[in-house]
Amino acid sequence: MHEKSAIIPSLNPEKTVKTISEFIKDMIENSKTDGLVVGLSGGLDSSTAAYISAESTDKDKILGLIMPSVTTEQEEVDDALLVAENLGIEKEVIQIDHLIEPFGELCAHSDSKYDNKLARANLKARIRMMILYYHANSMNRLVVGTGNKSELLVGYFTKYGDGGVDMLPLGDLYKTDVRQIASYLQIPGRIINKPPTAGLWSGQTDEEELGIKYQHLDEILYLMVDKNQKDHHVAEKLEISQEEILRIKNMMKSAEHKLNPLPLPKIR
Amino acid sequence: MHEKSAIIPSLNPEKTVKTISEFIKDMIENSKTDGLVVGLSGGLDSSTAAYISAESTDKDKILGLIMPSVTTEQEEVDDALLVAENLGIEKEVIQIDHLIEPFGELCAHSDSKYDNKLARANLKARIRMMILYYHANSMNRLVVGTGNKSELLVGYFTKYGDGGVDMLPLGDLYKTDVRQIASYLQIPGRIINKPPTAGLWSGQTDEEELGIKYQHLDEILYLMVDKNQKDHHVAEKLEISQEEILRIKNMMKSAEHKLNPLPLPKIR
Repeated sequence: MHEKSAIIPSLNPEKTVKTISEFIKDMIENSKTDGLVVGLSGGLDSSTAAYISAESTDKDKILGLIMPSVTTEQEEVDDALLVAENLGIEKEVIQIDHLIEPFGELCAHSDSKYDNKLARANLKARIRMMILYYHANSMNRLVVGTGNKSELLVGYFTKYGDGGVDMLPLGDLYKTDVRQIASYLQIPGRIINKPPTAGLWSGQTDEEELGIKYQHLDEILYLMVDKNQKDHHVAEKLEISQEEILRIKNMMKSAEHKLNPLPLPKIR
Repeated sequence: MHEKSAIIPSLNPEKTVKTISEFIKDMIENSKTDGLVVGLSGGLDSSTAAYISAESTDKDKILGLIMPSVTTEQEEVDDALLVAENLGIEKEVIQIDHLIEPFGELCAHSDSKYDNKLARANLKARIRMMILYYHANSMNRLVVGTGNKSELLVGYFTKYGDGGVDMLPLGDLYKTDVRQIASYLQIPGRIINKPPTAGLWSGQTDEEELGIKYQHLDEILYLMVDKNQKDHHVAEKLEISQEEILRIKNMMKSAEHKLNPLPLPKIR
């Protein structure tokens, strides 16, 4: 189980779910689309996004796509199926390995000089984006993003991969907030409490890759971003080093290009 | 040949090329990347983007990727090769059909109820984005966008397809401006004067799909966006109907979701 933060105030879960589900409802209406497509990984974020989607529109207007690769554990697929079944939404399981394979031979530059692990991981996230949009375009629907505020701020997502969506319903919720909302929505505890993973290679966990627990990351981000506090205040309050603050700030700076409008030179 | 517009003032081409090439140079430096990857279609925009890229950095730091499908004319490939040869940059030709095919079977919803032409066209643009990024990620380079201001404003591009890039060097140039700059750069006349096409299906031309000539579209956009003029002034000045203005404005409104930061509900 995860402890409550003494730094980040708890949300009103009822009000939060209402705000988000109305946002999704408005998105569908304003875009004149017929429903939603959401990628289900069996993880906390996508499960929460699906549960709130089901609060916002008819169940038959939501398609859950489960897109495992050879490195995906069967229990992740089972959890994703469980979410779809609990909600009564349509689901489809699509293995992605045969879609990725042909790309492997593509780049004559994939020699040992380059770290190709990143390129391959991003490829996987982008294949999933393409499948989501192939369905969304075919069915005139919107793609629901599953990114949370913690991931977005530090850029822990693939540009035009899992970052390639039509909306970010969880975009103002820290990872620890998502856990709180998931409990309120009675999402199975197994899904809430499993170690978060981007699912791009076997054994990958967010917290190992980020080098910090979400609880600590969220407290740092909350004080820096929501409370606009100075570095040394954040360091003092959380009893962490200024170096760690700087490390997180550098991640945030590197993430900007993934979130901001595309840069262009002003001519006229 | 294309006539000069009486509405849109000509650019200073030398100054424009300098501004854009310095913008690209700064992008590489600030992102600490090692160079550029650009998709070459043999068309005006990608050729101009490549020529200006070659003004901004060493030729051996630019990779031109030519990504024809079965519907691509051989002369388009030849023109793309000519651009790479003229500039002395590295090039690679990658046929994309075998990458697209497996997606065709994916969506159980691709029945006659839906217009799948759009989904398939977008798929093609997204496959090209994935190939560009697979190389860019492998080589620590940036993906150069080829979109111009006319296309961007009316949304004539695929979200997370040709719209999925790291920068838009031509993003403040109307299509007619790009022609002027291309002439200054001595890009072969055949490339400058061919009918613009997104290259997503055989015989596709931008102007047929948009239902308007770029020269007219650009004048409307210039007066509306750059000069901030009211609809009826634009209609009078250009001697066109208010309905046509409204049609363009609706395209612009529908395009917003492709350019703006992703929408999210504010919670805290």
